[in-house]
Amino acid sequence: MKAAVLHHYGEQLRIEHVELEPPRKGEVRVKMKAAGICHSDLHVVNAHLPLPVPIVLGHEGAGVVDAVGEGVMSVKAGDHVVLNWVPSCGTCYYCQIGRPDMCDEAAKLTAMGTMPDGTTRFSLGGKPVYQFLSIGTFSEYTVVPERAAIPIRADVPFELAALVGCSVMTGVGAVIKTAKVEPGSTVAVIGAGGVGFNVIQGAALSGAKQIIAIDIVPEKLAMTKKFGATHTINAGEEDVVSAVLDLTDGHGVDYAFEAIGRPETMAEAYNITRKTGTTVIVGIAAPNENVAVNAFSLPSQSKTLTGSWLGQGNPPVDYPKLLDLYAAGKLQLEPLVSQIYSLDQINEGFEALKAGKNIRGVIRFAE
Amino acid sequence: MKAAVLHHYGEQLRIEHVELEPPRKGEVRVKMKAAGICHSDLHVVNAHLPLPVPIVLGHEGAGVVDAVGEGVMSVKAGDHVVLNWVPSCGTCYYCQIGRPDMCDEAAKLTAMGTMPDGTTRFSLGGKPVYQFLSIGTFSEYTVVPERAAIPIRADVPFELAALVGCSVMTGVGAVIKTAKVEPGSTVAVIGAGGVGFNVIQGAALSGAKQIIAIDIVPEKLAMTKKFGATHTINAGEEDVVSAVLDLTDGHGVDYAFEAIGRPETMAEAYNITRKTGTTVIVGIAAPNENVAVNAFSLPSQSKTLTGSWLGQGNPPVDYPKLLDLYAAGKLQLEPLVSQIYSLDQINEGFEALKAGKNIRGVIRFAE
Repeated sequence: MKAAVLHHYGEQLRIEHVELEPPRKGEVRVKMKAAGICHSDLHVVNAHLPLPVPIVLGHEGAGVVDAVGEGVMSVKAGDHVVLNWVPSCGTCYYCQIGRPDMCDEAAKLTAMGTMPDGTTRFSLGGKPVYQFLSIGTFSEYTVVPERAAIPIRADVPFELAALVGCSVMTGVGAVIKTAKVEPGSTVAVIGAGGVGFNVIQGAALSGAKQIIAIDIVPEKLAMTKKFGATHTINAGEEDVVSAVLDLTDGHGVDYAFEAIGRPETMAEAYNITRKTGTTVIVGIAAPNENVAVNAFSLPSQSKTLTGSWLGQGNPPVDYPKLLDLYAAGKLQLEPLVSQIYSLDQINEGFEALKAGKNIRGVIRFAE
Repeated sequence: MKAAVLHHYGEQLRIEHVELEPPRKGEVRVKMKAAGICHSDLHVVNAHLPLPVPIVLGHEGAGVVDAVGEGVMSVKAGDHVVLNWVPSCGTCYYCQIGRPDMCDEAAKLTAMGTMPDGTTRFSLGGKPVYQFLSIGTFSEYTVVPERAAIPIRADVPFELAALVGCSVMTGVGAVIKTAKVEPGSTVAVIGAGGVGFNVIQGAALSGAKQIIAIDIVPEKLAMTKKFGATHTINAGEEDVVSAVLDLTDGHGVDYAFEAIGRPETMAEAYNITRKTGTTVIVGIAAPNENVAVNAFSLPSQSKTLTGSWLGQGNPPVDYPKLLDLYAAGKLQLEPLVSQIYSLDQINEGFEALKAGKNIRGVIRFAE
């Protein structure tokens, strides 16, 4: 069985024939059908997230349940599933208050790169191979905790369904669950990429009257119109703050979203909100970077700076809901996929991502 | 008629015999009975807020209506009033959405130091003397816009009622209106002073189960117990983050409030909140200072950083409500007043404030 393995930070992934143990109690084996290549995978390659190696990367994917371990209740063989990279425990404080995105146990798993019991199901030459976020979707098969396998309707192509597990939930959820944008609001989005497009269509879905897309790549800005952007600003050519003020009668927007992960653009997002405005950080900065905002403006302008993780999603509820919205024609998934790769071509996908060429490269697994 | 006038930044105030024009249309003349000396007045003296001089400072005060101009409907001669330093217009966007604390017109007045029409009622030798926040309470009489004179019950001593106009509204409102702290929450407050004590009693009023007061002055920390603090941390002796984690089973608090105005303690407040926690900045930093927080933690811990201005108060509704809470024994005002001065002693009050000796020095005007 083939998987793409990162052996050392900064290197290319290697396609290896890895061993996969059968699912244990509470675990599910999934035959992967599609897996998206996301900036967070690249963050691991670039050593921005400290994880054990060798590791199978990939945390956005969809497939078919192939076998289930003892006690698994929510899925059965043959079910279509989207994988969930926050396999929440269901019992910690955050799960109890309805915030599985903040699950304490899932947060521990991020750094461990294992199943909840601390072991891995992948191995190579008898030595453990870790699994990114307990999933590791860049593999023909994977074994995941039950909570990581979310059953979905069977009529959505896997390449599209895969995206719901990360970029769609992250972008749309930041708008509809974290910010709770109301109809008639004004919205700006910094970063027109896989997540930014979903912020834009989340804002359109929420009835925002003005959706301003901000990026430095004209082709990406042009694409934002498909998702509902009403205005675009090329940050390489215009001063963003002035341009947003011009578009909003001098006030700034009600909601700004940062979908890049740079402290400078996070501060810019804050600076383009109006008094009482909310800035939602969706982009992932390096662990030790700070964002700096004017201290006097927090009270005097009553501004709010917050963040959203996996779109504050509750996957068993929200992934099916997002796919229903797609089926109803209210969310677009096709234009999000910019390139299809085979597993063997995965490093091409990473190179395109680094070069800023892909919105979302998706691996389609061989039958 | 005597008033305390700041002629040049950095100097002491001078007690002068100033002229006061009668109230014009929509204005109210108030015979001042009491006025609190607040850090924001000191900020003007120290040139942290750029305002025109000469100016009559003071923005926390209570008195009796003495005369009203044409068209004034909400008060009449003889009414007891608390002065409101955010005399909102009632018609701008923020007033319309129920956020008079953010009123555009009142914000303009801050920098102008005048009545809404751009003129002053105080003068000296025929030249205009400005009024801090359209009020200028360090004066035996003052003329203010109708919206700045909030009628109150007549059975509360003026020295206590005065405090409701700034420090009480600011502190209690940050808890009950901005953060909306729920019963059973955990709360930390950095800064045990005139505002911090009110944050503490706001948290107690809201049913917080744990209220951690943080300061470097043992006497002030001791006083926090009167207002409902359950724990104290001396930041001069203990590492604040570790101490808060120790008190909260390693989680941090649900809500942290910064009531000093220093970027370092603002960041510390953010750092002592738990995942999903909210930090409310109440303290006023210098206009060009930044607060820096970890950029990755915003999404990954779903934290919120926000601010509160005049406790998000709606004075005509909230000042009477706060005084009713006092009358019902649910808010304490007496312990907030640390020293009474005459107007002639005002510079003593400022010196004590600078030296960190006073919680709240209050001027009592001669009959």
